[in-house]
Amino acid sequence: MPAIKKAEPVIRKGRSGSAVNQDPDVWAKITGKAVYGTDLYFPGMLYGKILRSPHPHARIKRIDTAGAYAVPGVRSVLTAGDISNKSYGIVVEDEQPLAHNRARYIGDEVAAVAAVDEESASKALEAIKIEYEPLPAIFDPTEALLDEAVQIHNNCPGNIAWERDMERGEPERAFAGADLVVENEFSIPSVHPTYLEPIACVAVSDYMENLTIYTALQSPDVVREIIAEALELPLSKVRIIGPVMGGGFGGRVYGNLKLYLLSSLLSMHTGSSVKMRLTREEEFTVGRPMIAARMKVRMALRRDGTFLARESDIITDNGAYSAQAPWVSKTLSERNDSVYRIPNIKTRARLVYTNKVPTAQYRGYGNQAANFAYESLIDQAAQKLSLDPLHLRLKNCTRAGDVTVHGLDIKSCALSECLQKAAEKVGWNNRKEGCGYGISAGIHASGSLVANKDFRGASARAVLELDGRMTVYTGEQEYGQGAYGAFVQIAARTLGLEPQLLTIYCRDTLVTPYSQGALANRQTTIGGRAVQLAAEELKKLIEEAASEMTGEPVKMIGGSLAAVSGKLIRFDEVARYHHHRTSGLTLAGEGCYVPPPSKYDETSYGNISVTYSFAAHAAEVKVDRETGALTVHRIVAVHDSGHIVNPPGARGQIYGGVTQGLGFGCYEGYVFDRGKVANSSLADYRIPTALDVPRIDYHFIEINDPEGPFGAKGLGEVVQVPVPGAIANAVADATGVRVTNLPITAEKIYRTMFKGECDG
Amino acid sequence: MPAIKKAEPVIRKGRSGSAVNQDPDVWAKITGKAVYGTDLYFPGMLYGKILRSPHPHARIKRIDTAGAYAVPGVRSVLTAGDISNKSYGIVVEDEQPLAHNRARYIGDEVAAVAAVDEESASKALEAIKIEYEPLPAIFDPTEALLDEAVQIHNNCPGNIAWERDMERGEPERAFAGADLVVENEFSIPSVHPTYLEPIACVAVSDYMENLTIYTALQSPDVVREIIAEALELPLSKVRIIGPVMGGGFGGRVYGNLKLYLLSSLLSMHTGSSVKMRLTREEEFTVGRPMIAARMKVRMALRRDGTFLARESDIITDNGAYSAQAPWVSKTLSERNDSVYRIPNIKTRARLVYTNKVPTAQYRGYGNQAANFAYESLIDQAAQKLSLDPLHLRLKNCTRAGDVTVHGLDIKSCALSECLQKAAEKVGWNNRKEGCGYGISAGIHASGSLVANKDFRGASARAVLELDGRMTVYTGEQEYGQGAYGAFVQIAARTLGLEPQLLTIYCRDTLVTPYSQGALANRQTTIGGRAVQLAAEELKKLIEEAASEMTGEPVKMIGGSLAAVSGKLIRFDEVARYHHHRTSGLTLAGEGCYVPPPSKYDETSYGNISVTYSFAAHAAEVKVDRETGALTVHRIVAVHDSGHIVNPPGARGQIYGGVTQGLGFGCYEGYVFDRGKVANSSLADYRIPTALDVPRIDYHFIEINDPEGPFGAKGLGEVVQVPVPGAIANAVADATGVRVTNLPITAEKIYRTMFKGECDG
Repeated sequence: MPAIKKAEPVIRKGRSGSAVNQDPDVWAKITGKAVYGTDLYFPGMLYGKILRSPHPHARIKRIDTAGAYAVPGVRSVLTAGDISNKSYGIVVEDEQPLAHNRARYIGDEVAAVAAVDEESASKALEAIKIEYEPLPAIFDPTEALLDEAVQIHNNCPGNIAWERDMERGEPERAFAGADLVVENEFSIPSVHPTYLEPIACVAVSDYMENLTIYTALQSPDVVREIIAEALELPLSKVRIIGPVMGGGFGGRVYGNLKLYLLSSLLSMHTGSSVKMRLTREEEFTVGRPMIAARMKVRMALRRDGTFLARESDIITDNGAYSAQAPWVSKTLSERNDSVYRIPNIKTRARLVYTNKVPTAQYRGYGNQAANFAYESLIDQAAQKLSLDPLHLRLKNCTRAGDVTVHGLDIKSCALSECLQKAAEKVGWNNRKEGCGYGISAGIHASGSLVANKDFRGASARAVLELDGRMTVYTGEQEYGQGAYGAFVQIAARTLGLEPQLLTIYCRDTLVTPYSQGALANRQTTIGGRAVQLAAEELKKLIEEAASEMTGEPVKMIGGSLAAVSGKLIRFDEVARYHHHRTSGLTLAGEGCYVPPPSKYDETSYGNISVTYSFAAHAAEVKVDRETGALTVHRIVAVHDSGHIVNPPGARGQIYGGVTQGLGFGCYEGYVFDRGKVANSSLADYRIPTALDVPRIDYHFIEINDPEGPFGAKGLGEVVQVPVPGAIANAVADATGVRVTNLPITAEKIYRTMFKGECDG
Repeated sequence: MPAIKKAEPVIRKGRSGSAVNQDPDVWAKITGKAVYGTDLYFPGMLYGKILRSPHPHARIKRIDTAGAYAVPGVRSVLTAGDISNKSYGIVVEDEQPLAHNRARYIGDEVAAVAAVDEESASKALEAIKIEYEPLPAIFDPTEALLDEAVQIHNNCPGNIAWERDMERGEPERAFAGADLVVENEFSIPSVHPTYLEPIACVAVSDYMENLTIYTALQSPDVVREIIAEALELPLSKVRIIGPVMGGGFGGRVYGNLKLYLLSSLLSMHTGSSVKMRLTREEEFTVGRPMIAARMKVRMALRRDGTFLARESDIITDNGAYSAQAPWVSKTLSERNDSVYRIPNIKTRARLVYTNKVPTAQYRGYGNQAANFAYESLIDQAAQKLSLDPLHLRLKNCTRAGDVTVHGLDIKSCALSECLQKAAEKVGWNNRKEGCGYGISAGIHASGSLVANKDFRGASARAVLELDGRMTVYTGEQEYGQGAYGAFVQIAARTLGLEPQLLTIYCRDTLVTPYSQGALANRQTTIGGRAVQLAAEELKKLIEEAASEMTGEPVKMIGGSLAAVSGKLIRFDEVARYHHHRTSGLTLAGEGCYVPPPSKYDETSYGNISVTYSFAAHAAEVKVDRETGALTVHRIVAVHDSGHIVNPPGARGQIYGGVTQGLGFGCYEGYVFDRGKVANSSLADYRIPTALDVPRIDYHFIEINDPEGPFGAKGLGEVVQVPVPGAIANAVADATGVRVTNLPITAEKIYRTMFKGECDG
């Protein structure tokens, strides 16, 4: 009997048995009860605010904070001089908690205040007097490369944050002997992950040097290490607890480190908890969008369509600080080379500092940007060779057993099946009058082996509770992508139990096993594998304890515990038995998945992921030939993500990822005006709304991957990768001209059609 | 370098290295930053309030809640009919979350409301219409025993909640053959633990049937089980997280179950978090004080002072519901029989329902009440036999190796040394003119083997963190008594580390090992032993991992890790090594202390505790012979608590416990007016303030106990036990007359001296 007999004012049961219901966020979200970072309140909590540079580049000559301290309710005012201000960074240590001597973009953090309410904090910001000396600023990465360009970071001559020159095979010779060489230039703007919830956090420090930060992150364990090092705290003194995450899409892998560091410093200074949150405008102006890119690409083919070589010159725009932009630039500059068999590759890539918004990462990790360029060029080649773009792709596409040009070890691959199915479903050979059709193929790592130095695996704990239910402890992160639903399915299947008997415990770096977090499509493949191993271990421990308890062999079969005598044993009996004999402990299975070593050499040659996911998307579009107005009718998304363990979650990934791909292809992109973000609101920075979403058809080619749990591979990132390329090719098919700079808007299509401005 | 360079507005370092500093509460408390239950706030939180019966005994004929629902801001109004209202209880299942049909005392919970603020909740209470039919009420337990008395609980004829008739040896024969029989009657009022922080909680339920209750408890794991059962929730769905505890003294072993159950039900009904807190007045009128007692006692002695037998007739006043009052009555009725060698015992004890405040437990568990009676009677006997009360006690006192009359197995005991030292220090043979001197001896269980059915032990987890520091996970509870300081000392000593490298993690039933909690003096003895075992296991695991890492044998000596080659290894290296090989796990030692079985028979004969603590207190008092005004000059507290592992904590226990003993003896006690508490505020219910505390001298006889960690035994409860008896005897010594009903006030001394009213 339920404890409450009354008619209940709100839905409260999660008993229907669907896997999704075991995701702790789902019910909270659909009933509006989810608690996000911005909802948090702690007793005596202060509110922090940041004073930001109004100049894109300026020397900070003098800061006077006396006026701010005079504002009633102000508890702390910090500038670079008040803190040790240790440099930190994810790849390059080019940031400090507060700008010291020099501000490098409009929005650079110069001072931070904490006060009893947001109004007092805002008043305090106004009362801080700063004397700036403006410096010449650079907004264009190609200008930043010029000899006469001002140097944005003292230790970085030439403004190059990261670069690579890479050759595989003999590209010069291949180009020289080719039947056809096609080339083009493409540009892709900076794009913000635009999660619905702006980043917010509360830092709570205490008198024993403990620091707890409440904030939703994709990689809390990794952020914890960065924060401990930057603040010179013992690692075990720092704890991150995650409220519900309002989307992440890569933007919350490291979130906004500045916010966490400054709220922590203010909390350590005042001894009170300090909340900070970004406004939507700040998200656009000081949040961390993905790098913009300019790509000059050439491709060599044989007459029969065989791909011979590709050459790329890539400049990515880093903005003022680099975060993980070097890694994104690296992925952008190489991942697509493994979609097809291309034996010869030459790539020059440079990541360049400018006085603009610092950048980071986004779902797809630059892979969708390069995919747009390369897939556009493949269609150009098909046209020149009068070959069907589908057949050209099928002829060259990567297959299981391949070791690609960069050394990726393709253990499972159904890309050709994906291409064929996408073409079949979109009606490739049965086209509608007046429509354009495009296709694009993508690859993405699933379970990076190189994302966090040499830490590659994952671990999980599965516990038998005293009431016979089981709990899985995981450090992996759920942010709407369905990871926890997948874990419940994996554990339930391993244990032979109904998913309702399982609970996921998560989001507390103190309690949950260390994890790299939700990135590089590693949740299901690597995190899920650890869950599987933990569940297997728990099963073994339960059988052992039950055998000891009954004095006869016991096996766990089909969710039941049966002794050889036929006697059935309840799980709670075994739990209590163990509880008693250990004076209070629970039976806990630990699962450690240690993936094969990455064999990755200094030229970045070698396998970089446990496995790889593949996708082919086909688009059907219509273009108004008078106005250029584009209507995307349909996206057909066909995926090889191995065996699908959590179908509702996978469906969600398809709908969300394709929609974001549509945004990337046709809507989004930063617009700058002398370093200032000109479209810093959701009114000006357009993302697709529900009304803009086309019909999305999806299909899974369910081959079993040999590494992933129950044959599963990741899906979250690859789903966005082929969308812009497929749409671009469909637009070209419809109009006969090619838009080479994203986003593909009506205006650009019009100009390309009638003025030849973007013609490729 | 510290992260903040600025002069800091508040103290924030806990680096001085004293054990106390490792107690996570200490710095928070002394800087005013501690977060108590009443400070908690959760987004969208509602406030709950309770409508209480104004009648001591009444039939509830009709409840109309329509008006309450009409009050703006009201979200839920619950009465017994709205909930399943399952009966629950700690010993007897005599309570329900809300009174059903009948209210049994002034304050009985009849309805509960949740609203957006406390004002709206209060208005809603006023708007509930209840029709009562008053019933005859009983306020005196002896009247409750009469045949014609109204029956307070349907299933409890005679109003007896618990009773026992016990005989050991041959008491009748011993009394018949005695040289001297002394007798007297004593009465002890109900006393409230009067923790500084009134009980408060927040219940947070979610849509997956998870229920988290934030409240400070001495036994959260046990309360969790009671709540899960009462609310018919799976145990693993209920979690209790403890904020800082503002005192407990036994009153927070189970705290206020009504409050937790009603806030949970309101939260489950509304889907919002619900806060409830008791006012100080409610603490006195509906909180759970210790039982009052009336004791008629006789004692038989030989002429040489040898104790031959004791007979007791005890009536304890249960109030309306029983909670753990049966257990307290049981301890009250037997524990003191083991202070001395008394071969023959006859005891009749009855716990009786009345229409007054329900009772529970308090530090000392009734032992101090009975001690007052028995130790007073021993002095009466000494007077009659013209023997020195000290010598009479030394002649009869329990010694190591004894098995007492109730079967207690006394493995270590320095009671005679305590008595001698107390006498020496108070100046027993060197008395000040005009002063009275009294002495009293006490025993208390240290690590009960019977408190929670057959669960007796404790477990702990010790973890090597990635930074080389170590964390101890314990389910035991700190509430100012110094348990965590003791644990840090025990772990540090086991590992050979500085205490500053250790952190205690606690107060979360989900994360910390199951524990019976802070009761029966089990923290140091049982909890500490588990910590010791966990630290030993961790040490072994660290040595093994370090040996594997270096390829040569490694030993942990004096806080360092040294390989046989002489190479020193850092702890963080070993931690990282293990972290890597397990893909993210930490090295964790689990310690399970399983104490010897209790061998406890159906007559309650047998050993009931891991070990026993002893104490002798001596008091020096002065009585104004004209007014009766009592001045306690000095209490000398001499203790056998084995080896003292945490000296600052032990000192605190002495000061606090002696002061509470003084309150019990001379200040406190409920006053009722027809079932209504007449002194329900701290103005009327007097406890000693800092100005009332006499000089307290203390001394430890540090013998090593064979079971306790490093020879330690408990101290927390025994320290209050001898105080009232020592003061009573000193007053009798000063005045020549004896006050037999507590508290011993000037008025009572005066009346006894001049009117013979309380003469014994």
